Amino acid sequence: MRIGIGYDVHKLVEGRKLIVGGIEIKHNKGLLGHSDADVLIHAIMDSILGALNLGDIGKLFPDTDMAYKDIDSKILLSRVYEIMVSKGYEIGNLDSVVAAEKPKFKDYIEEMEGVIANILKTDISNISIKATTTEKLGFVGRKEGISAEAVVLLKEKN
Amino acid sequence: MRIGIGYDVHKLVEGRKLIVGGIEIKHNKGLLGHSDADVLIHAIMDSILGALNLGDIGKLFPDTDMAYKDIDSKILLSRVYEIMVSKGYEIGNLDSVVAAEKPKFKDYIEEMEGVIANILKTDISNISIKATTTEKLGFVGRKEGISAEAVVLLKEKN
Amino acid sequence: MRIGIGYDVHKLVEGRKLIVGGIEIKHNKGLLGHSDADVLIHAIMDSILGALNLGDIGKLFPDTDMAYKDIDSKILLSRVYEIMVSKGYEIGNLDSVVAAEKPKFKDYIEEMEGVIANILKTDISNISIKATTTEKLGFVGRKEGISAEAVVLLKEKN
Ligand SMILES: [Zn+2]
Ligand SMILES: [Zn+2]
Ligand SMILES: [Zn+2]
Repeated sequence: MRIGIGYDVHKLVEGRKLIVGGIEIKHNKGLLGHSDADVLIHAIMDSILGALNLGDIGKLFPDTDMAYKDIDSKILLSRVYEIMVSKGYEIGNLDSVVAAEKPKFKDYIEEMEGVIANILKTDISNISIKATTTEKLGFVGRKEGISAEAVVLLKEKN
Repeated sequence: MRIGIGYDVHKLVEGRKLIVGGIEIKHNKGLLGHSDADVLIHAIMDSILGALNLGDIGKLFPDTDMAYKDIDSKILLSRVYEIMVSKGYEIGNLDSVVAAEKPKFKDYIEEMEGVIANILKTDISNISIKATTTEKLGFVGRKEGISAEAVVLLKEKN
Repeated sequence: MRIGIGYDVHKLVEGRKLIVGGIEIKHNKGLLGHSDADVLIHAIMDSILGALNLGDIGKLFPDTDMAYKDIDSKILLSRVYEIMVSKGYEIGNLDSVVAAEKPKFKDYIEEMEGVIANILKTDISNISIKATTTEKLGFVGRKEGISAEAVVLLKEKN
């Protein structure tokens, strides 16, 4: 088994859709980034790439490459899935935390878990997403941005 | 084996007792929250619930429920333990970090580890708590709050 | 297998060399601390000590001890390695994230991984270092400091 960790942050700005965990979430602001800025899928990809010791998404999908401009991070996650499989690994389980003062994610969690489990071709019981505030403290608490962290256990495909 | 991660933050305010790791710590401020605001036990519970893919403590013990007002988080942790056992798992090992500028926790760590190991019915060698400052940086460094993070490996009960 | 997590923060100041991952990095500021303030090696050591339930580097190498003044953290890491071996464990794999607005670490990552793998006597494929910014948010984004986080899986030596 191999362990990985991913951590990502994006700024909340007006005039962008809020995409987290592969789905659009109703909110007056969205996350800024070269891709769709899906902070959770980015942390998840980094945890998988870290477990495989293959660098990070900045290395695989450079934000200087116009091919990735506004790209749906689900497409990138499916590429990370292909890489993982080609290395002989599959998801053991994955757990994650999204930290945001607003909006509340609880009504979206199950849908997000389904989307991600589907792309990673694992049972939904192996994908866990949790949401928290930071009690109005720090940049997350001031609603300047959203952070996400993920840990993963990969296992070798028998 | 399954992996989980928990992250929690609470604000430091006057007029509250400081409860961390299940014990009261002498300090001029305490953590604000619906329960006793034990930031470390909250992170630990979330790591276990995440590993089991059972959501988080906000889902299990809603802060809108008066049953949990000022509740001792050790009671909640013992419920999480029961859930873990009912799902067929036990603690492999757990590691955690409490980030606070003040107070210093080092004289309390061993007692905290004993309290938590006792509730989770595991050997104390399987429960690790570490404390750090953030070198006066950020909301932790400004003493506005305390954060805690925990990771856990659960194993199936034979 | 045992899991561990380490988290560390140091302040960026003028008049210090920047040492991260065991190597000197060209930058106009460096990290402040009692030792060489290598935030990444510190997080890595704490993850290993946490997995072994042996406390943290503050306990093993107190910053009140002049023996550790400006010490090269690679020396401390080699001591942590000896302790790990004496307890009967070896590195399964380790993954980490350094969060800094500046400088960019990507050209140094491979060298850092080699240095750390060499000290921990494990294959370089078992040591992963990733770097990220926090998109100008928080103390990392304001370039006040650098944080690092590491997770590790230790396995019993055959
Ligand atoms: Zn991102
Ligand atoms: Zn809490
Ligand atoms: Zn340090």
